[in-house]
Amino acid sequence: MMTRTPFEVPAPDAQAEAAARDRQSQLTKPPGALGRLEDLACWLAGRLRDPRPDMPRCEIFVFAGDHGVAARGVSAFPQAVTSSMLANFAHGGAAINVLARLEECRIEVVDVGVASEATPPSGIRNERIRAGSRDLVDEPALTRGEAAAALGVGERCAREAIQRGAQLLIAGEMGIANTTSAACLICAYTGAPPAQVVGRGTGVDDAGLRRKVEAVQAALQRAKWEPQSARSTSGPEASRILAELGGFEIAAMTGFYLEAARTGTPVLLDGYISSAAALAAVAIDPRVLHWMLASHSSAEPGHAVALAALGLQPLVGLGLRLGEGSGAALTLPIIRAALALHGQMATFAEAAIPGKLE
Amino acid sequence: MMTRTPFEVPAPDAQAEAAARDRQSQLTKPPGALGRLEDLACWLAGRLRDPRPDMPRCEIFVFAGDHGVAARGVSAFPQAVTSSMLANFAHGGAAINVLARLEECRIEVVDVGVASEATPPSGIRNERIRAGSRDLVDEPALTRGEAAAALGVGERCAREAIQRGAQLLIAGEMGIANTTSAACLICAYTGAPPAQVVGRGTGVDDAGLRRKVEAVQAALQRAKWEPQSARSTSGPEASRILAELGGFEIAAMTGFYLEAARTGTPVLLDGYISSAAALAAVAIDPRVLHWMLASHSSAEPGHAVALAALGLQPLVGLGLRLGEGSGAALTLPIIRAALALHGQMATFAEAAIPGKLE
Repeated sequence: MMTRTPFEVPAPDAQAEAAARDRQSQLTKPPGALGRLEDLACWLAGRLRDPRPDMPRCEIFVFAGDHGVAARGVSAFPQAVTSSMLANFAHGGAAINVLARLEECRIEVVDVGVASEATPPSGIRNERIRAGSRDLVDEPALTRGEAAAALGVGERCAREAIQRGAQLLIAGEMGIANTTSAACLICAYTGAPPAQVVGRGTGVDDAGLRRKVEAVQAALQRAKWEPQSARSTSGPEASRILAELGGFEIAAMTGFYLEAARTGTPVLLDGYISSAAALAAVAIDPRVLHWMLASHSSAEPGHAVALAALGLQPLVGLGLRLGEGSGAALTLPIIRAALALHGQMATFAEAAIPGKLE
Repeated sequence: MMTRTPFEVPAPDAQAEAAARDRQSQLTKPPGALGRLEDLACWLAGRLRDPRPDMPRCEIFVFAGDHGVAARGVSAFPQAVTSSMLANFAHGGAAINVLARLEECRIEVVDVGVASEATPPSGIRNERIRAGSRDLVDEPALTRGEAAAALGVGERCAREAIQRGAQLLIAGEMGIANTTSAACLICAYTGAPPAQVVGRGTGVDDAGLRRKVEAVQAALQRAKWEPQSARSTSGPEASRILAELGGFEIAAMTGFYLEAARTGTPVLLDGYISSAAALAAVAIDPRVLHWMLASHSSAEPGHAVALAALGLQPLVGLGLRLGEGSGAALTLPIIRAALALHGQMATFAEAAIPGKLE
């Protein structure tokens, strides 16, 4: 396994956050009338170290990987869709491409472990570690070395983006059957029962849903995970669980979130799979949580379980269940609006408006 | 009272909506994976009469008026704030100005009945019918003639915008104490009890909240409104209630919504006050409902009562309670994203991606 240098996760800038809170109280609106947008602006002020920040430069990464457990019929789509979707990403035809264009965000799609013998299409970054994970019901999905390599891919992607000037990072994913792996991780890190966490993913039928629940139960048993250990799953045990039950793209997202936090860069979480990676990152280092913002609540029921365990409240709930980073990208305009209001509204003093009656 | 020419509200284009639905089923995503965005794109296709519509051109109007009931201490802010805010709007310092700039929307602020002896500041459209409404606890807030004139202002604004090329309309408002008037209207049009509909508005304390509930109860009694008549409040009775318990800006918004529907133009509702005007418009002509989209759910508790009565589901819930059209303007990027995804994503055939397993 790769030797990791010790690292520190910096704290947000409490002074910038407090100054932003003070400014909010002076803007020409009743106190609290902008609801979540007020908290959002203050949260970002603390992370961007600026009491009146501009819209941060954002980059989007989509990590792709395949899952051995797909052979068990846990997905409504065949495994070949993962590699076909790489071509769709390369041609700009996927949902996340449309949203990245709309938001003028740089987007990079990374093959971390797609089940294909061919090299990824042109325009897709080739970081493939293996052609798909192993079936997590039978054996560890990834070796410890593979998991470390995937974490490393995510870390490198985050670091490069930050060096290019990115101030806000989004990780999305693509991988047929990855909701099964994510369900295993969410159960393992939160202690919630599979029946509460497993959903229909891309749309499996009732029989597929039953197979999925059974696969998750069997995998948790095989990985020797005990419900009572959920709260204490941290450090080395957190990394072990990630290798046992995760996937290449999920481990890459985990590394991406860890590295962003280490460099003091906020991340905007996406949906269900993203929340599994977030739980893994927080289990490895709880301070990472200070740098995470939840974008949307997925239609996948276990997403709420993961967000509750993280103590994060999503900004919107639009019933999405697509992944790719789409839910996160959709909320960028809400962040932009929150910061524009925060930065550009007149204060009561500037507008000479009478204040609240006492 | 102004003589009204008979009018017709056109039906949405069912063919364009069905064609949009068909296209959604072919896009490279699991069926339904874009959640509310799919319905939103199809809804707009029907209203914009185009199976693959571009982002509609949007205009924002802010109608301002004062309320005689403010003298009863039902608001946390003094009445003078309404006219100070007109100056703030004129200088571009209010929340809705910031959002209109961000969205590059034309915005017009209209004084329909602000309590001031001075003419409105330069940049504010002067359509002032009277310097504030009468105290609705003691007497009808508006005469029937004043209500008709205010409806006419809103109708004219909508008509002019549509003639300029607007394809989506937003009405916002400003008026100290207008949540009291809106609460009366929501009670009257839905039959819900005042205790369920009255909220803290800009932030009244407990004593203010009690005064507000009492004012609404007294006004409903005075206006001879009977709870059992809510369901049958339509046509002439709906207009009578609007004059009795409404306000200048609320009546203007009602006329705005009516005229938009008559010309087949969709409107994006804002929050609490907007929902009261929407209920009035729908009570006058139920077909108006086909042209209404709910943007956000307000922190004001009675907003949910109004939306439920309209059968509308808001797109987002961010805890806003500002008015001005701010919640509606905030959701424009979600509409833009829904239409971009709908129009620009590749189909399964175009991307040569295997479909769902059967």
